[in-house]
Amino acid sequence: MNFINKLNAAWSGNDSLLCVGLDPDLARLPAHLRDRPDGIVEFCKAIIDATADLACAFKPQIAYFAALGAERQLEAICSYLRAKYPHIPLILDAKRGDIGATAHQYAREAFDRYGADAVTVNPYMGFDSVEPYMEWEDRGVIVLCRTSNAGGSDLQFLDAGGQPLYQHVARLVAEKWNKNGQCALVVGATFPEELAQVRKIIGDMPLLVPGIGAQGGDIAATVNAGRTAAGTGMMINSSRAILYAAAQDGEDFAAAARRVALETRDAINQYRR
Amino acid sequence: MNFINKLNAAWSGNDSLLCVGLDPDLARLPAHLRDRPDGIVEFCKAIIDATADLACAFKPQIAYFAALGAERQLEAICSYLRAKYPHIPLILDAKRGDIGATAHQYAREAFDRYGADAVTVNPYMGFDSVEPYMEWEDRGVIVLCRTSNAGGSDLQFLDAGGQPLYQHVARLVAEKWNKNGQCALVVGATFPEELAQVRKIIGDMPLLVPGIGAQGGDIAATVNAGRTAAGTGMMINSSRAILYAAAQDGEDFAAAARRVALETRDAINQYRR
Repeated sequence: MNFINKLNAAWSGNDSLLCVGLDPDLARLPAHLRDRPDGIVEFCKAIIDATADLACAFKPQIAYFAALGAERQLEAICSYLRAKYPHIPLILDAKRGDIGATAHQYAREAFDRYGADAVTVNPYMGFDSVEPYMEWEDRGVIVLCRTSNAGGSDLQFLDAGGQPLYQHVARLVAEKWNKNGQCALVVGATFPEELAQVRKIIGDMPLLVPGIGAQGGDIAATVNAGRTAAGTGMMINSSRAILYAAAQDGEDFAAAARRVALETRDAINQYRR
Repeated sequence: MNFINKLNAAWSGNDSLLCVGLDPDLARLPAHLRDRPDGIVEFCKAIIDATADLACAFKPQIAYFAALGAERQLEAICSYLRAKYPHIPLILDAKRGDIGATAHQYAREAFDRYGADAVTVNPYMGFDSVEPYMEWEDRGVIVLCRTSNAGGSDLQFLDAGGQPLYQHVARLVAEKWNKNGQCALVVGATFPEELAQVRKIIGDMPLLVPGIGAQGGDIAATVNAGRTAAGTGMMINSSRAILYAAAQDGEDFAAAARRVALETRDAINQYRR
């Protein structure tokens, strides 16, 4: 099943638009896992088990693994996810961007090594830096459009021929790059009006939406602005608010993560229809 | 010594503007190294030893290692380089781009894990996605500006308030982002006129210039367009043309790499003054 179909099935099967981000920060791991060599793997597996019936996708952020030299652990987590929850899309958040021959190597990393269903990519280097990922026809390519950070405006809000650059990127992807229906876009929850603009441009293309939870985006405004007519079309990501939901060491972190994931899924669902 | 000083010393010490790119493609390795677990390490070490007196920098491209799951090998190559040739800057070509907390993880990867003197980064997400790298005050931050691929024009050549986006990026970096004098820019050799425009904007800031060799950029036009008044200011990268200089299996690949590196350095030097 290709990425878009798998995502559709997960939206419907789990009645959820919630994407659970896996950003394991060693300093914030429960004390009993912090010093174990497989601590990150055990932590992520427990989070996955606790939330797999509530999520439409899981999204490991590779930077957290790369900083620790923990690529083998990321491989183990991805293998676990694919084997136990093959119906939940696995998104590798890597925001890669490089020329053709190098992009091909990054595609091999995301799709062959980690077995991701989709990968995030950066549009700055243009279509020939994005196209190599599309050789994997059953995978998704999620292009950065309007990011959730304050500095996102530095480039993305520049006027590019009568429209802000992020809208130009949305149009490029919707009208030209998305030849095989594999694309999605990243649009932050911190700018609901811009999310609505992008939704108008792209039709039913899926959106990966970071920025709720720790980053402060408002759920009602986000869902109202970004959903499709069918009440889907979004993977609304929450990472830290779920992963580190336990108030203190000793509290069951997986149970706390499940509680917050459930609340977040249900809060999102209030505004879907 | 910080990155910029180290680069200045290498330009002068080796009388060279040549950056040697380390993009180890298993399929193109000499037969006797292809199937050895340490084949990539031995290959890169031999290339480094053969060209260290001809280069102003070495630039491993992390995608080639990531596709193979060869991060440990990249660590070994970086350690070797830092220990044996501490006077030659080590640039990690990673083109990272993510929000603050995540960018900090990527900075740890580049600077703490691999010990790079500088890392390439993508400007699409704005200054707060670039600033975290600057906490490492002795390291360099090399921002993508005008890339050497054909598709580079898709975004970089858009009119952004009366100037092409890549010029806007050059100005942003030169006038605002480069607070501590740590920055450099990536500008491809395939567009000498645009290289000259960028040089006018940025003063003496260093440029990392890919696109000669396999990508077809012209050396004379590149050097004339991009050099500073002092005849430096550039790290002109060549990867494949040097790494795979040996015409066939059996030829000494390191000697062939040295021959091409020497020719390239000298060809560049013809146009420096």
